[in-house]
Parts: sequence; C-alpha cells; structure tokens
Amino acid sequence: MPKNEKGKLRVIPLGGLNEIGKNLTVLEYADDIIIIDCGLGFPDEDMLGIDLVIPDISYLEANREKIRGIVLTHGHEDHIGAIPYVLRQINPPIYGTNLTLGIIKNKLEEHVLPHTPALHCVHAGSTVRLGCFSVEFIHVNHSIADACCLAINTPVGTVVHSGDFKLDITPIDGEMMNITRLGEIGKKGVLLLMCESTNAERPGYTPSEKKVGKSLEYIFTTNPDKRIVIATFSSNVHRVQQIINVSAHHGRKVAITGRSMLNIIGAAVELGYMTVPDGVLIDINEIKRYKPEQLTLITTGSQGEPMSALYRMAFADHSQITLGRNDLVVLSSSAIPGNEKLVGRIINELSKNGVSVLHDALVEVHVSGHACQEELKLMQALIKPKYFMPVHGEYRHLAANRELALDMGMSDKNIFISDIGKVLELDRRSAKWGGTVPAGKILVDGYGVGDVGNIVLRDRRHLAQDGLIVVVASVDTDARLLLSGPDIVSRGFVYVRESEELMEEVRQLAAQAINDCLDRRDRTDRMELKTCVKDTLSKYLYSKTKRKPMVLPVIMNV
Amino acid sequence: MPKNEKGKLRVIPLGGLNEIGKNLTVLEYADDIIIIDCGLGFPDEDMLGIDLVIPDISYLEANREKIRGIVLTHGHEDHIGAIPYVLRQINPPIYGTNLTLGIIKNKLEEHVLPHTPALHCVHAGSTVRLGCFSVEFIHVNHSIADACCLAINTPVGTVVHSGDFKLDITPIDGEMMNITRLGEIGKKGVLLLMCESTNAERPGYTPSEKKVGKSLEYIFTTNPDKRIVIATFSSNVHRVQQIINVSAHHGRKVAITGRSMLNIIGAAVELGYMTVPDGVLIDINEIKRYKPEQLTLITTGSQGEPMSALYRMAFADHSQITLGRNDLVVLSSSAIPGNEKLVGRIINELSKNGVSVLHDALVEVHVSGHACQEELKLMQALIKPKYFMPVHGEYRHLAANRELALDMGMSDKNIFISDIGKVLELDRRSAKWGGTVPAGKILVDGYGVGDVGNIVLRDRRHLAQDGLIVVVASVDTDARLLLSGPDIVSRGFVYVRESEELMEEVRQLAAQAINDCLDRRDRTDRMELKTCVKDTLSKYLYSKTKRKPMVLPVIMNV
Repeated sequence: MPKNEKGKLRVIPLGGLNEIGKNLTVLEYADDIIIIDCGLGFPDEDMLGIDLVIPDISYLEANREKIRGIVLTHGHEDHIGAIPYVLRQINPPIYGTNLTLGIIKNKLEEHVLPHTPALHCVHAGSTVRLGCFSVEFIHVNHSIADACCLAINTPVGTVVHSGDFKLDITPIDGEMMNITRLGEIGKKGVLLLMCESTNAERPGYTPSEKKVGKSLEYIFTTNPDKRIVIATFSSNVHRVQQIINVSAHHGRKVAITGRSMLNIIGAAVELGYMTVPDGVLIDINEIKRYKPEQLTLITTGSQGEPMSALYRMAFADHSQITLGRNDLVVLSSSAIPGNEKLVGRIINELSKNGVSVLHDALVEVHVSGHACQEELKLMQALIKPKYFMPVHGEYRHLAANRELALDMGMSDKNIFISDIGKVLELDRRSAKWGGTVPAGKILVDGYGVGDVGNIVLRDRRHLAQDGLIVVVASVDTDARLLLSGPDIVSRGFVYVRESEELMEEVRQLAAQAINDCLDRRDRTDRMELKTCVKDTLSKYLYSKTKRKPMVLPVIMNV
Repeated sequence: MPKNEKGKLRVIPLGGLNEIGKNLTVLEYADDIIIIDCGLGFPDEDMLGIDLVIPDISYLEANREKIRGIVLTHGHEDHIGAIPYVLRQINPPIYGTNLTLGIIKNKLEEHVLPHTPALHCVHAGSTVRLGCFSVEFIHVNHSIADACCLAINTPVGTVVHSGDFKLDITPIDGEMMNITRLGEIGKKGVLLLMCESTNAERPGYTPSEKKVGKSLEYIFTTNPDKRIVIATFSSNVHRVQQIINVSAHHGRKVAITGRSMLNIIGAAVELGYMTVPDGVLIDINEIKRYKPEQLTLITTGSQGEPMSALYRMAFADHSQITLGRNDLVVLSSSAIPGNEKLVGRIINELSKNGVSVLHDALVEVHVSGHACQEELKLMQALIKPKYFMPVHGEYRHLAANRELALDMGMSDKNIFISDIGKVLELDRRSAKWGGTVPAGKILVDGYGVGDVGNIVLRDRRHLAQDGLIVVVASVDTDARLLLSGPDIVSRGFVYVRESEELMEEVRQLAAQAINDCLDRRDRTDRMELKTCVKDTLSKYLYSKTKRKPMVLPVIMNV
C-alpha cells in the first residue's frame, strides 16, 4: 500500500486556537476526513452588531467528498453551535452522545436546512468507524452531562482529543471521568494529545460539582423564610439536579422560567439525565398557590442577558414574577469575561428593590467545568503522548498548557502550539508543520452569514464613535452650477437643535467648497466634488470639535 | 441667631453614588457651600464615542456666590479629574495636599481656563476655615500618597468624609492612617459619617502595600537573567518606590517610559514623595548601554490601553524597546472592570513573542487601595457616628456597606442610602430627606462638553448595530415629478460590492415609494415622502436581512 506508507495524518484546527469558542478540528488522512466538534464563538466587543461567529469551512467545502463525519465531544454552544450553519454547506453524518444530540435536535428546529441531517447516537465506551479512523468516546466530567473525550485510532497511531473536561471524584451522576480507560490507551502508546487549555493558568484542582450542593444546602437552611430564585447555565444539568434535590429536601416546590432552561430541562428529563421527585416541579403559573418560603425558582439570565427571565424579573418586566424583600436571588454561575457589567447591573437593580443577592464572590455557588493545572497534568500523565498540542484557548492559555507539558518532562520540540488553518503533519515517527489552509471568522448578523466583513465593521466603528454628516447637493456639471442644496443631515454627531450655528457653518462651507470646485475647469466630476466637500468639512469639524464624524457627500447631477 | 437655629446642614452628593467615579459631594449650610472632591468618571460601554463623564454642577452654578472652596481628599482622577471642566463655570479656591495639587497643576497645563485657579496647599493634620465650616485633613493610606479623610466641623455637628482609604499597618512611607485622631474625633461625637464602599463586598482586610514588595523581591531573585518590565498605575507612588528599591537592591538601573508615568514620578520626586538612590534612574535612551539583566523598566499600560507604552512595546511599535525571550513583564495592577479583554490582548501578544508574563492572578503583584469589610467596620467603630451614609459605589456596594453598619449595631433608620441630587437635611437631633437638586452625567466628547446627550447616543448605538442607508432624490413637488435619483448610499450595513442585487432592489423600491407618494394628491410634502421611503425600506430590509439599518431619506425639492 504505497499510498498509506507515504501517508501523513494532517491535524488542522479551524477554530478554538488563539480565540475562545468556535471549536472545530479536522483530522485528514489520505481520502478520509473527520471533524471534531463544530462550535460557534461570540463576537468581540469591536464586532459591532454581530450576533455570532462561526468557523470558515471553505477547506471542508473544497474536500466535501472526503468527509466521513462530525464527532462531538459535548453539547455546549462552543462545540455544537455552528452545526446549523455548517449543514447548509456540507451534510456529513453527526455522532454524539444522547444529550448532545437532544440539544442539537432542539436547535435545528429553529433553522430551515436544505437536507435532513443524519444524527447517530453514541454511548460513552463505544467506538465509531469513520473511513480509516475509529473514534472511541470516553466519559469525562464537565459542566454539562454526557461529555466525552475522544481516542481516535488513525493509520499512523492514536490521537486523543480531551474535549472539555475536569476530574470530578464525587460527580452528581456517579460517573467519574474514565481515567482507567485513558490510562489503558496511554499504555498502548499515543502519538498526539490535543488537550484543552481553558484553566491552564489556574493552579490546583477544580472543586467537585458537589461543593455547590453543599453551599446550596447551607443557603436553604439559613433562609427558611424567603423565596429562593437561582439563576444558572441552562445546560448545567447536574447543577439543576442539585437545586431540585435541595429544594425537595427542604419541602419546596420548584418552578422553571426562561425558554432555554425549559428546553434543556425538558430534554434532560426525557432522556433520563435528571430525576425529579414526584410533585416537586410545578408550572410557573401555579406559584400563586404557594407561599414564598415554599418555592424555588430556577431561571436563565445568570450572565445578565437583557432579554433573560432574571433580567425581566429584576426590572419588573416579568409577567408572573415580581421580586422584593421576600426574595433571595442566587447567581450560581460566574460572569463570562465581558459580561461583568451586565451581571453587575442586575445585582444593583435587585439590591435597590430590597432583594438579597448571593453570587460566587460571596459564597461558593459555582465551580468551573474545566480542568485546572493538576488535572491537565494528570491527563498528560495518563496519556503519555509522543506529541502534544494545547487547544481551546487564547495564546496565553495555550502557552500555559505548554509550560505544564514542559514541567511533565516533555521536550519543547515535541510540543506544537498551532493556530487556526495551520496544518500539523504526523507519521509514526515524526511531526512537522505542513503549511496552511484557509481559516478565519465568518460573522453572522441577522440572516446574513459572511456578508459583514472588515469594511462594514470599520464603518460601524467609525459611525459609533462620532456619528455622521450627510451633505446632499444637486449640480449641473455641464453648466457648472449648484442647483439646489447643499442640505446637511447629521446623526450621532451633535444634537442638531442645539447646534444650529455649527450646522449653518457646515452648510456654508460645503456650498463654498462645491462652488470653488465647479469654478475650476479641471475639477468638475462628481468624485472630485465629493472629495472636496469631504476634506473641507472633515478638517473644519475636527478643528472645531476634535471629533471625526463620517462625512458622506451625495452629489446629484441633474 | 434665628437663621442658624432654624438652619439645617444639607448634604448633596452630585456624583459617586450609584456609579463608579465622578465623586463630588456638596455641604451647604445657610450661605455657605463647600465641595468635597471634583472627579470624573469613565463612560459606560453604551456611551459610544464618549471620552469621559463629569458631574452636572448646575446647582453649584446657581449658588456660585455661596461657594467657599473645593476640598480634595487625594489626587486620583475620580476625585480631581473634573476640575479643569468645573473651573470653566465656577472659580472657588481649591484645597488639597502637596502631591494632589502637584498632579492638578500638571493637568491644568493642558487646559485653557478663563481665570487662574487659587490652589492652597494643606498638610495632613491641619485645618482650613471655609465660611461656617472648618475642615480638618487627616492622613489615610491609599494607593496614592498624601491621601486624607476629612473631619468637617459644621454648625450642627461634625461630619466625617472617609475619602478613599485603607489601613496599612506597614506603609511604605512609614505613615499609618491616623486612627488615633479619628478615634479622638469619634469620642467627641460625630453627626454623620460618609464612608466609601468600593470593597464593601469583600471580607477581611486589604493586604499591606508591602506584600507587593515581597513578591517583587521574589520575582527579581528568581529572574536574574531577564530584563524586568513592570507596568503599574502611574499615580501609585509607593508601588513605584518599591520597584526602584528592589531594582537598586539587585543592582539594576531603572528607566521610565510612558508620559503619565514620567509626569507623576517627576512631580513625586520633586515634592519629596519618592527617594531615588543616586545613579539608579537612567534615561530610556541609555538602556542600550546595559545588558538586559541589569535593567528594570517601569511603564504605563497596565490596563491594556491601546496607546500606552506597554501596548506599543507588546505590538512592536515602541521606538526604543522591543520585547522578546529575554524579557519578563509584570502587570502590577488589576484590570478595572471592563478592561479585562484589553489586558488579555496584551498578555496574548507578549506570550506569542516569547515574553514571560506575570499578573495578579498568578502572583500577588497587586493589592487594592480600598478598605475591605473589617477596615470599614473599624472606621465606624472609631467614628461612632449618629448617622451613616455609604458613598462611592454602585448600589450593591452601598447596600453592602449598610449591612456592615447594621452588623455594627446601627439602627436602619439612621442609615441613609442616597443618590446623586438627593438632599439629606441634618440638624443636631435629626436627619431626613430634603428633596432633590439637578444632578446627572455630563458627557465630554472631544472639545464638546454636554453637547452629546441621549438622542445622539441612541443614534450612535443604532448606527453601530446595523449601519445606515441614505436615500437621496430630487423631486419637483409642484409638478409631482421625480427629477433625479433615488441614489442609494450605504455604510456599515452590507458590503455593497457583494450586495449589488440587494442595493438595486432598494433603489427600485425607493423610486416606487416616491412615485406612489407623488401620485397621491394628499401626500406630497417632503416630510411625507421621507416617511414613505423610510417605512417601505425598513420593512423590506428587515424581512430580507433581519437587520434594522438607519434609513435616512434626503428629498430635495428642485
């Protein structure tokens, strides 16, 4: 088999490196490609107006006939969220665990797709054959149930992808991360470990999810007179399970509010990932029948999202629930970087209304779902890979994960910090960079996928900063005459009613610039008129206001 | 003296409550007013394009003849930054400590003012008489030298304003906060304590500034081969002193970069707030003469500010310094909420270039300058006020500070959570709300002070979100004729070159809307034409793109 002898395994991240989210990694060998995860990212603060970000998959489109399938580690948005968009271009079979597929089905209902995707349920412990690859799903702990890491048998050796994980020795569902199986795979020899880096800067171990249960027990015991409202991530099934358990234990009924919370709890209960004691769950419309101290409410909005149930409750805009002195709100979450101010706004508003608020800075009501340094080193110790590639993180996180590998005695030359689109080529004995493929961020804005790029964003930033001034005039370029205007329209620059004088100066300057330009025989086309007006006004406005509004001249030749 | 017998002391915060920054509090009694601090705030993320925020002082302008002076607690921007703007409207004498005034002088050089302000230097321990008030300046510890709290003797009793403070038992300059004097004042009886609330949610004590020195000593000892670059807040004179001391101790030369760092260190050395051993400080141009391991660089940019020296070094844009594998960068700071991503960007870029980076999540290279819960309670225990008003903070911080007062045994009815513009009236025996005065946020954008308000900001947010479409047409309303156009210009909406079809549809729809409107005898004025075009296009564009660009019709009647 000459082809296979010469063959190299190509590892190509198309997302998740040097960024947070939109995780997608391609493994390619000869005529086979598999895709690990297919996530979305959230826009940076300078991506004005953008809803979400997905990976550029033009490399996959160009190689569509090679693709054998998408394998998913778990059901978080940054691992599955791009699926509805990617399925418009390619339609490979999708493999994931039960809950992961349940969440995807929910999600796909909101999208119109050209074809029905083939979803295949895989249980942790089983193996899927995809072309020359066979992919074993191995149970790990994470902040969502049914999460897996992947051990992928390839023609040149085994590749392990950690997915997102932590080691929880006392997990809520009783299933500890399968470190035994990982150790067995490690003993047989692993060519490459791709390991997540989210918490690579944090020393020690991530606490068990059970820690949160203990905090909740304490909070419920010390607040017997209050209605307790708990906001958390809807996908954290085990967190919700603990809230239900503690509530049942304290004789409280539990009502759920928030669309995504209702969706995911529905799926989790149906698929058997959650056990709810009979009679504990009530409909939100039934809460009137109970006293505050008999109730727990579970809600979305732990990130301060302005349309979430908690936000609406805080700002007295929720149809069923008004919060006040009888309420204790627990934010069982941590603010995702960038959301601190939104979360703060809710805490302030609740405090103003006399609501007591507990959050993770005050009590341990949240634990991370990601491995800290000792767990990351444990992963390396079990897998003992020949080569190591940190994944999932900004450069600082990848670099911190490399430091851990160096600490474990790995040689620097066997560690590869990659980037999106960068190809690592491996065979049984070697690993080296193999060029690049197209990769990047595709921006989603409303229905538009990819129609907003750098130029549009640059204009949005300009408009956001200082607004704009539109100058409209009709001219007759042949007769060299200004026929009507210039009219000045301004938005986002100054409050026009209080700046009439400035606006009149602008109008006169524009008129003068147009007339000057028309008077000169060599400069009369519309483009030249526009440049003239733009330069004159920009210079004047900056000298007068130290601002640089966008100046938009529209010259009509009548 | 009937007037004084009936007289009430009015306490009026014009900034710093339910917000971070722009601290300004007014005390008024009969014909006398004093102003405590005069700070600026930084814009919220939805105040697009705004440079800074200052308090609305129309109440002071209306009562200018009563104003006896501005008393300043310390030289941070949120306590003095609005002075150059306020001095354009009122011109009272200003009282502050030596370093505070030094920083103000520096700042005023950048502004043209209608009159020369009268700056009066006060030493901690002395008292200033201002109308019926006498103000005693009392030394406290803080993250800037020469900080004070104020004990203000008024006709109805003593008012203590904490300023910003912490208790540092081992301060760098040897001067512990004067708790003895505070205790003496407390023993004599205090009517009202206004106390800062920044860290009121944090339990325990804030560590001593000396803790940072120990971390630095450890860092210098374990990195003998590297050039060490330390970014910190320029106003933290004691931090800079410690960096110089540790550098001298390790035989390193120190060079400074960054304009504000040079300015403040210059002032601090000149005024005697810093002691630099001979020959330690060198000019940045001299660093070429030394080996990396013989150098420490102190720089601005600890908040990731895009024009700062550290940012320019990280992105290879600094004229004298390029960073690489021989460098260790220490961020001796914590990210101010909202700046996390900017700081992260610098850490990533430095890591990419092989620079080692230490920050406060990894080593204790920063301590807060604000009192934590035990210190706040100590302040209350010493002052033993009859009434308590938490100041400086969002509502959550004010509420947390009230909880501390309740813990100390104070009665809820004696605690007043106020707001900007809200008047508290006190006499010797009582305190109650006394209405409101005008207060608010004045936005500064370039040279403009107050010319950007809610309407302009709303437009900027709209433009930032989805851009705009300008529709220009010339009509003859008498003849009911569309003469030329409509021309369509778009910015920040879609990339026009790739959306020609959509733009052409928009043009045709606009033409049709104008013609339809002109055909109807009852609707022909320009306003109606505009509304017609706007409604038609907005509806169409939303259905087509799920976006809502601003539609700006300009109809010229030729």
